[in-house]
Amino acid sequence: KRGREKVIITCAVTGSIHTPTMSPHLPITPDQIAEQALAAAEAGAAILHLHARDPETGRPSPDPDVFMRFLPRIKQQTGAVVNITTGGGQGMTVEDRMQAALKAQPEMCSLNMGSMNFALHPLAERYDGWKHDWEKPFLEGSKDFIFRNTFGDIERILKDLGEGCGTRFEFECYDVGHLYTLAHFLDKGLVKTPLFCQFIFGILGGIGPDPDNLTHMKSVADRLFGGDYRFSVLGGGRHQMGLATMGAVMGGNVRVGLEDSLTMGPGRLAVSNAEQVAHIRTILESLGLEVASPDEARTMLDLKGADLVAF
Amino acid sequence: KRGREKVIITCAVTGSIHTPTMSPHLPITPDQIAEQALAAAEAGAAILHLHARDPETGRPSPDPDVFMRFLPRIKQQTGAVVNITTGGGQGMTVEDRMQAALKAQPEMCSLNMGSMNFALHPLAERYDGWKHDWEKPFLEGSKDFIFRNTFGDIERILKDLGEGCGTRFEFECYDVGHLYTLAHFLDKGLVKTPLFCQFIFGILGGIGPDPDNLTHMKSVADRLFGGDYRFSVLGGGRHQMGLATMGAVMGGNVRVGLEDSLTMGPGRLAVSNAEQVAHIRTILESLGLEVASPDEARTMLDLKGADLVAF
Amino acid sequence: KRGREKVIITCAVTGSIHTPTMSPHLPITPDQIAEQALAAAEAGAAILHLHARDPETGRPSPDPDVFMRFLPRIKQQTGAVVNITTGGGQGMTVEDRMQAALKAQPEMCSLNMGSMNFALHPLAERYDGWKHDWEKPFLEGSKDFIFRNTFGDIERILKDLGEGCGTRFEFECYDVGHLYTLAHFLDKGLVKTPLFCQFIFGILGGIGPDPDNLTHMKSVADRLFGGDYRFSVLGGGRHQMGLATMGAVMGGNVRVGLEDSLTMGPGRLAVSNAEQVAHIRTILESLGLEVASPDEARTMLDLKGADLVAF
Amino acid sequence: KRGREKVIITCAVTGSIHTPTMSPHLPITPDQIAEQALAAAEAGAAILHLHARDPETGRPSPDPDVFMRFLPRIKQQTGAVVNITTGGGQGMTVEDRMQAALKAQPEMCSLNMGSMNFALHPLAERYDGWKHDWEKPFLEGSKDFIFRNTFGDIERILKDLGEGCGTRFEFECYDVGHLYTLAHFLDKGLVKTPLFCQFIFGILGGIGPDPDNLTHMKSVADRLFGGDYRFSVLGGGRHQMGLATMGAVMGGNVRVGLEDSLTMGPGRLAVSNAEQVAHIRTILESLGLEVASPDEARTMLDLKGADLVAF
Ligand SMILES: [Zn+2]
Ligand SMILES: [Zn+2]
Ligand SMILES: [Zn+2]
Ligand SMILES: [Zn+2]
Repeated sequence: KRGREKVIITCAVTGSIHTPTMSPHLPITPDQIAEQALAAAEAGAAILHLHARDPETGRPSPDPDVFMRFLPRIKQQTGAVVNITTGGGQGMTVEDRMQAALKAQPEMCSLNMGSMNFALHPLAERYDGWKHDWEKPFLEGSKDFIFRNTFGDIERILKDLGEGCGTRFEFECYDVGHLYTLAHFLDKGLVKTPLFCQFIFGILGGIGPDPDNLTHMKSVADRLFGGDYRFSVLGGGRHQMGLATMGAVMGGNVRVGLEDSLTMGPGRLAVSNAEQVAHIRTILESLGLEVASPDEARTMLDLKGADLVAF
Repeated sequence: KRGREKVIITCAVTGSIHTPTMSPHLPITPDQIAEQALAAAEAGAAILHLHARDPETGRPSPDPDVFMRFLPRIKQQTGAVVNITTGGGQGMTVEDRMQAALKAQPEMCSLNMGSMNFALHPLAERYDGWKHDWEKPFLEGSKDFIFRNTFGDIERILKDLGEGCGTRFEFECYDVGHLYTLAHFLDKGLVKTPLFCQFIFGILGGIGPDPDNLTHMKSVADRLFGGDYRFSVLGGGRHQMGLATMGAVMGGNVRVGLEDSLTMGPGRLAVSNAEQVAHIRTILESLGLEVASPDEARTMLDLKGADLVAF
Repeated sequence: KRGREKVIITCAVTGSIHTPTMSPHLPITPDQIAEQALAAAEAGAAILHLHARDPETGRPSPDPDVFMRFLPRIKQQTGAVVNITTGGGQGMTVEDRMQAALKAQPEMCSLNMGSMNFALHPLAERYDGWKHDWEKPFLEGSKDFIFRNTFGDIERILKDLGEGCGTRFEFECYDVGHLYTLAHFLDKGLVKTPLFCQFIFGILGGIGPDPDNLTHMKSVADRLFGGDYRFSVLGGGRHQMGLATMGAVMGGNVRVGLEDSLTMGPGRLAVSNAEQVAHIRTILESLGLEVASPDEARTMLDLKGADLVAF
Repeated sequence: KRGREKVIITCAVTGSIHTPTMSPHLPITPDQIAEQALAAAEAGAAILHLHARDPETGRPSPDPDVFMRFLPRIKQQTGAVVNITTGGGQGMTVEDRMQAALKAQPEMCSLNMGSMNFALHPLAERYDGWKHDWEKPFLEGSKDFIFRNTFGDIERILKDLGEGCGTRFEFECYDVGHLYTLAHFLDKGLVKTPLFCQFIFGILGGIGPDPDNLTHMKSVADRLFGGDYRFSVLGGGRHQMGLATMGAVMGGNVRVGLEDSLTMGPGRLAVSNAEQVAHIRTILESLGLEVASPDEARTMLDLKGADLVAF
């Protein structure tokens, strides 16, 4: 058996779930995204999981040009691993979602292991008054939104980004079946080990945020992937710190960031991504765990290196 | 606590997964569907889960007229509960999928608790020579097929069929997240207890057919629904009899039928739906369990009664 | 991965839990034990797990002379593997419990993986009138009975019987901790693979007969022992057939017999051990599983062979 | 459902597992025990779980007179709940183990829910040179030590201390079967709710310190006890902080202290019980959880009050 490795902290800086009305701290512009990403890296994040937003409206955007306004700056100022979403957001095609990653050829991309409902509409009821017109319809529209990731889509991303660009993946698993889908691609030889699985809890449409779901996900992954994988834990909303901590106790890695939760403790908005990173880092160190540096994460995940990206 | 109840056998007669090439025993025409359904009821099925197929080509069909060529005959000759799919099959819209049920207003309908990949394409490689032209492209096309069941769709079916027609549901849960989706609708008061959950294992895109997934599904459902639900187990393909048996040992009900598996033991095609029903019935009785009659199933599930349907 | 192996049926013929009053079919005398053991082997049991009883009173006995009145006869008339208890029964010392096995040097012995309460006293309330004076105090006394199996005892049995006689073990695990104890001995090199673990459910003092305990025991054993073990399932009392069946569905082997349950379905006494063996065999075959012959069991468990015993 | 309650920290100050050689910080004399207990309460422990030791040799002692040299002082200087062991230590009879509690009539006592191996002998190999002659044989002797807690013993403690003195219990559960034993006493009406279950992981002889054992224990307790119990988590040795933290994430309470672990992080001895209490308190608060005061613990556990003890 492998001894206890260092813990990789991934920070998901802005995502495409939350909207500007929900928090003034959610980074919107390329500058804000770059600044918060850099501060998160400084605080201990080895991996920066990145989406872009329209700088004017804050709406999630797949536009490679927007990405290119923060990626080079991030690369220049930190050694942290850049991980670009291929999940994108509601209303984007799979082609849209791949554009930025194909252009930037990052060390890592996220890759979602199944189509699913991704329902944010209950959030729409929690706010009165919206900063932007798109927000409320965007959230309400998710009642009929399917987050599309067919077997064909996954295969294509594996080929174009994995084989094509030497990118490795954060395999986002929102339910037990997503692990079986990943096992299917492993059996077919289309994904390469070591695997890095992000277990995601608490999205309406996916598996819920109850702790026994986490032990079950790990148990299934152990059976399907044996020793040749690592997992990380993402708990949505108020479950963020608790489930990440539990995942670390179980031998896993952690993901935090404003994509996944806007809060820092009950009822208080986090003032930055870095605050969440620093917070989970303190908890990890209290548990006697060490945080992995970007280069340690690169070795663990067998990444191609920051010099081989196209930005 | 409730003592051990009788076991409800559901028989899913033809479905929309398998194609005519795969088995000569798969019922295609209204006559075949009626005959096999009646024989299944005779053998012990309390509930008949029904799809229709184009009588000429065997392709899954949502056409209410085709349904109406076998529903009245089944009603006339058996007391078994008629359960009409709202899942339909690849290529049908949600409107298509609801048509027959809205017309027939059956006691039960299936209702799938989430959008998901529903991948049959590995099946296409197992056969050479096809009876019909549509079969191979149909299977291969499932590589990009999303089985659509958004929160909006589910709500609409609950309203139109549940409230509108007094129909109750076989809540088909292909993964743990589907249970949380059902809990969401229960919290919102849109579904009525007693719930009847079909736990489905082994569809590529959903949770796998490993036994610990079954105990986990039950454990989550126990937590979410307390005493006010029943579960039934559907294992796809060669896992059919084993998982159904395990489900019965765990206090659940069972589903068999050619929709879910074409075989009867390793490497042998089942000659009829009734053969599978008779087989699971024998196993259940060997375990000291009693099989529920249609009227006992009606009482357990609080159904409106066979006289209140529209066929 | 190993494909699905044949299923080993162990029959535990008389044990030391039940008393003569409880069933007229419980074998007591050497003749009865031999006859029922032989019939059980005939019905499909590959392994015969054997205790002795005082021929006059039916009280469990460690006396090697009593064992020797049925062991040679069983050996002569069947090829089934003889497995002699080292658990003995209430009131016997560990020395007592080892005597018969040390004398007979069988292919297998049971070996209990921990000290525990083994409470039968609730049984005493279910009967009025006793065939023998010892029965009621024996059952009532179990309220303060500790089934002794210290680390020292286990080590001694492993050395004297395992190393000393080439005997292999049915490692009886009544709770999760017993698996960890077995792992401790495996780490120390004192037990040899392939392991054969008997998971035991439903003894008051041990893990309960709920199905999720079975999936959990398997999950823990998978983690601790990897591919190098087999498990078998013993459900006490009315849980016998259900849990054994579930165990078989999960890839395991089964144990039945009057030691573990006196009944054959709800409220009916089994008329013989063979009846239970035939019954579980029918269920296994209904599930498409094949029953292992004694020689197939010998190969699976790497036993020394029936010609190398001392009876 | 109950909302998230405050977290009760129990501190087990000295116990009977570790020996003086192992740590200079292990409290031995009544003064040391009192001082460390008081500091632990100051640091946030609502409950103080107490054993006594021979002041000269440090050997675990059941002597009520030794207990009486620290109990009154603790009572005088803190409002924390005093919980006296009935588990005692190797070599003590059940009578011995009850003496101090019967005399002191505390608000709480520990009560172990089963007989089991309690093996410390592997510890004997880790040290060279011993402060006291008794230590090495004490540890080595545990190879044949059975921690006795028969059904009769448990019933007697429930009657004499529970009914007799109004004491409530920390039900120590070292394995899944212990939960079933507790359920047996609950069914018989011999224990009173609300239950307070200490789940104990990592004692050789009991369930191991793997995280999925914790989710399983909780799942079984949920089924057996419904809403009418609370659990607390004790991880032995280096698993202490991790499992306690995981338990808190899962909605439970925590136990720390030098009885359970001598260390504070990898390879460093804790300098006091208070250090461990302060440490877990910091982690709990980082997770947004609040620590219960002694009076809040009294309300949660329905204790008789500090004024009703006999010391
Ligand atoms: Zn993202
Ligand atoms: Zn269907
Ligand atoms: Zn036995
Ligand atoms: Zn203690």
